[in-house]
Amino acid sequence: MLGLMQDRPLTLTHVFHRAEQYFGHKDVVTAAADGESSTTIAEWAVRVRRLATVLDTLGVSGDGRVGTFCWNTGRHLELYLAAPCTGRVLHTLNIRLFPEQLVYIANHAEDEVVFVDRSLVPLLAPLADKLETVRTFVVIDDGADVPVPDGWLDYEELLAAAEPFAGTFVVEDENTAAAMCYTSGTTGNPKGVVYSHRSAVLHSLITLTADAFGLSERDVVLPVVPMFHANAWGLPYGCLLAGATMVFPGPNMTPQAIVSMLERHRVTITGGVPTIWMGMLPLTEGRDLSALRQILCGGSAVPRSLSESYREKVGIPITQAWGMTETSPIATMSTPRSHHDALTEDQRADVRARQGQPAPFVDIRLVDPDTGEVQPWDDVATGEIQAAGAWIAKEYYRGEGGGAQFTEDGWLRTGDVGTGDRYGFVRLVDRTKDLIKSGGEWIGSVELENEIMAHPKVAEAAVIAIPSERWVERPLACVVVAPGETVTAEEIIEFLTPRVAKWWLPDAVEFIDEVPKTSVGKFSKKTLREKFGGYQVAGPTSHDGA
Amino acid sequence: MLGLMQDRPLTLTHVFHRAEQYFGHKDVVTAAADGESSTTIAEWAVRVRRLATVLDTLGVSGDGRVGTFCWNTGRHLELYLAAPCTGRVLHTLNIRLFPEQLVYIANHAEDEVVFVDRSLVPLLAPLADKLETVRTFVVIDDGADVPVPDGWLDYEELLAAAEPFAGTFVVEDENTAAAMCYTSGTTGNPKGVVYSHRSAVLHSLITLTADAFGLSERDVVLPVVPMFHANAWGLPYGCLLAGATMVFPGPNMTPQAIVSMLERHRVTITGGVPTIWMGMLPLTEGRDLSALRQILCGGSAVPRSLSESYREKVGIPITQAWGMTETSPIATMSTPRSHHDALTEDQRADVRARQGQPAPFVDIRLVDPDTGEVQPWDDVATGEIQAAGAWIAKEYYRGEGGGAQFTEDGWLRTGDVGTGDRYGFVRLVDRTKDLIKSGGEWIGSVELENEIMAHPKVAEAAVIAIPSERWVERPLACVVVAPGETVTAEEIIEFLTPRVAKWWLPDAVEFIDEVPKTSVGKFSKKTLREKFGGYQVAGPTSHDGA
Repeated sequence: MLGLMQDRPLTLTHVFHRAEQYFGHKDVVTAAADGESSTTIAEWAVRVRRLATVLDTLGVSGDGRVGTFCWNTGRHLELYLAAPCTGRVLHTLNIRLFPEQLVYIANHAEDEVVFVDRSLVPLLAPLADKLETVRTFVVIDDGADVPVPDGWLDYEELLAAAEPFAGTFVVEDENTAAAMCYTSGTTGNPKGVVYSHRSAVLHSLITLTADAFGLSERDVVLPVVPMFHANAWGLPYGCLLAGATMVFPGPNMTPQAIVSMLERHRVTITGGVPTIWMGMLPLTEGRDLSALRQILCGGSAVPRSLSESYREKVGIPITQAWGMTETSPIATMSTPRSHHDALTEDQRADVRARQGQPAPFVDIRLVDPDTGEVQPWDDVATGEIQAAGAWIAKEYYRGEGGGAQFTEDGWLRTGDVGTGDRYGFVRLVDRTKDLIKSGGEWIGSVELENEIMAHPKVAEAAVIAIPSERWVERPLACVVVAPGETVTAEEIIEFLTPRVAKWWLPDAVEFIDEVPKTSVGKFSKKTLREKFGGYQVAGPTSHDGA
Repeated sequence: MLGLMQDRPLTLTHVFHRAEQYFGHKDVVTAAADGESSTTIAEWAVRVRRLATVLDTLGVSGDGRVGTFCWNTGRHLELYLAAPCTGRVLHTLNIRLFPEQLVYIANHAEDEVVFVDRSLVPLLAPLADKLETVRTFVVIDDGADVPVPDGWLDYEELLAAAEPFAGTFVVEDENTAAAMCYTSGTTGNPKGVVYSHRSAVLHSLITLTADAFGLSERDVVLPVVPMFHANAWGLPYGCLLAGATMVFPGPNMTPQAIVSMLERHRVTITGGVPTIWMGMLPLTEGRDLSALRQILCGGSAVPRSLSESYREKVGIPITQAWGMTETSPIATMSTPRSHHDALTEDQRADVRARQGQPAPFVDIRLVDPDTGEVQPWDDVATGEIQAAGAWIAKEYYRGEGGGAQFTEDGWLRTGDVGTGDRYGFVRLVDRTKDLIKSGGEWIGSVELENEIMAHPKVAEAAVIAIPSERWVERPLACVVVAPGETVTAEEIIEFLTPRVAKWWLPDAVEFIDEVPKTSVGKFSKKTLREKFGGYQVAGPTSHDGA
């Protein structure tokens, strides 16, 4: 027996029309090289309607990929809606990719047009000839004083010449592709994740739920996380759905610029990778950030010490979320629950250092990477975190990498290894490929890094495996000393000794200037492994002892 | 081009398994005749699993309708999950219906089994022979000392004898029927609304969004609204999804019992029809209700004065929501928005007296009942409120009443008439069938009632049309005086004079002991119209003047 409810598809067209109809008075603010500009949603919506016409005029196919090579701006938000609301597919290109990756991705996705912020033209222009399917480049002038190649069109001119689309946007099938984003894999070619309208809508609803971001009409949201990175964690669509005010940082992503915008606009929710919050921490002194109610952080495990510093200096800790391009990205969130209230502040900091509980309608299981057995949620057993749900990828675009990354029963292998407690609070231990196998036992490099980063004189730390004759692999700690501090290898080991099992202690500590990062701000251990490839150590005499 | 996201259906099985896995430590509290009992979600989940086996053992068909004739209890919540998670259809029977309606509904839905609270057995037993498809009656002992017919089974015995279902519940198609509920129409036979898993899931997600109920794991929720009335506004499924603590009032629905439970359990969210909050208001004096953050109210328009009294005495106003059985029921909510902050307290009270903004993914339009034209959102033009969305009914069970209640393009005619401002805040003016057509112009009876109820000496008021030779129809005010007060017809008219157009002033005022109510607590104007059928008045000399 079937239900008798209306067959209304879950599509982003509703998000657009709702924002246009009820939230026309709300603001979209964007910082640019030549100052800050503010537009109302009503004005923005007319521009989206004009842009819809422009896409037609440019001859973009009915389901053509619309590439964007842009910062976080209100204009990027126009593309976020105009492409999917007209049945096209928004393809956000990562501006930090290596040129060859960028070329590969645009060709693989068969982008027909690329919209590019003028300040980014110098990155894109040299590659233009290699982008085989791109017929049109459209430059969005952000005040940057850089030359534009001949034949590239001007965004504002196109919009001014276009009649606004007059009707209601309709996408009939909620499984229609809405957007795509390539994963910045550290090995192999990038792989395309294709979001559907259904997945984008459900994910947006999750951003509104109280125990996730809890986005409300009253919020003022500044997404530091790039809009080319997994939909900026769903913040843009979520804000439109909730009617929240949006503040976009534009090209200037310095900590100085961010902290000023947070203060000036009385931002309530912001989100970005740990590096951003590390850089901003020293600048929060004397700033009025009292409107902030949530500092979202993801992309890499958040050091406990960083979150604690924010709690002490800014008044709220960092809220950790975990996910990846393949998970839209919200999979888990560490919003504290009522059973944590009885804990000490110190214990609560431990909870906040976890990646948190699965969001509603995300299924998570922990699977032993060796045996394939599902592990219990006892906070001891570790396993690869596998995810299932309506906004989790089932395969990559054009079927690539399928066998390795998806299980036979349709779950995503996230490549992260962790434990989970009985309340579902996941704790990341490592990436499967970064796990250090010492004498047949796993050492979690992320766990070890977190302990090292708890040292007050350590800014960042990455732990990698180095070959060992006796133990096969042993940990090497690569440590970045905090500015103005000095610390020795012995001090690090001494600090770790009461905190980890004896056989987990790194065999060596190397001091480095910075941890190399991938294009989305994650630790690039591949680079470190290359650098320290020849390292030789003996390792401990046994695996016993705590 | 299609998205490449996992094909995971939106089903209530996820709600069950999520609650069982992560929220096993949370409580479900139920008050009964013999005291209060508390169970954990973990214990509750085992009982749901046993109940799943019981449904099999009783031979209920794969998609059989499982009738419930129950109060708000934790055991009713077991049925709420066990039926849909096994593919069956939960059919909540309204215990306040007339016997002939009840018989009609159970037969129309073809209920195979009815679960009945022992205290309600006296209402159901006399009808048992007429329930043609019901093969089994199961009595849930709630401590009431009433006889049980021979052959009726005992709930606890059945559960004790059943092995808990051991696996994962699976419902493959999200459009499968999950639950049904009949509308208590004041004319014609009741009509069945059939909810799908998809609609129930999406509606549950909405209850978690910040600007709707904002249900969080931290909430303690007491649904006064009956679980046999439109899924108790989605609170039970929403609470399970969020992990909120649930407190169920059981058979004792007196204001005394409710206010005590609200205080004792430090309830944060409660919901019920206006009558409940009217009755409870005098009892709030000296009670510690400081944990309350939301008093939800719906079913009838909430008198402005009632909400204001709560704001003054309890510290929070009533939050109005609007919807009906056909809308699952959340359609609009009057959560105040940021643009209301600049208003005076008095203006904000006006906003709160509105039914509010459409929830995400509910489309609302106002349609002129005479011309069929869609009206602007200018807060002046009135129209019938029509609704569309994934949790709005598309037709009634077995296709009944279709033509009248659904438009050709698939929208629900709600039968409510209202206006909407540019922020989407709907204001109910009347029911289409209660509109008073005086001299070719509409008078909104609900609007007039609200004005009368603003009089400090008036408890309740209902306005109905009475025949007029000159004007066709004219308004008659039926007024219930507040306890211990006296007021004259002249005082009422005098009070109204500066508040409404002159031609809206009632031609007569009748004082009555109480406004007759339907089985779900709505004003029954049908009863009043029958009572005052022969009323004759002359009406005003003209329609001019303010």
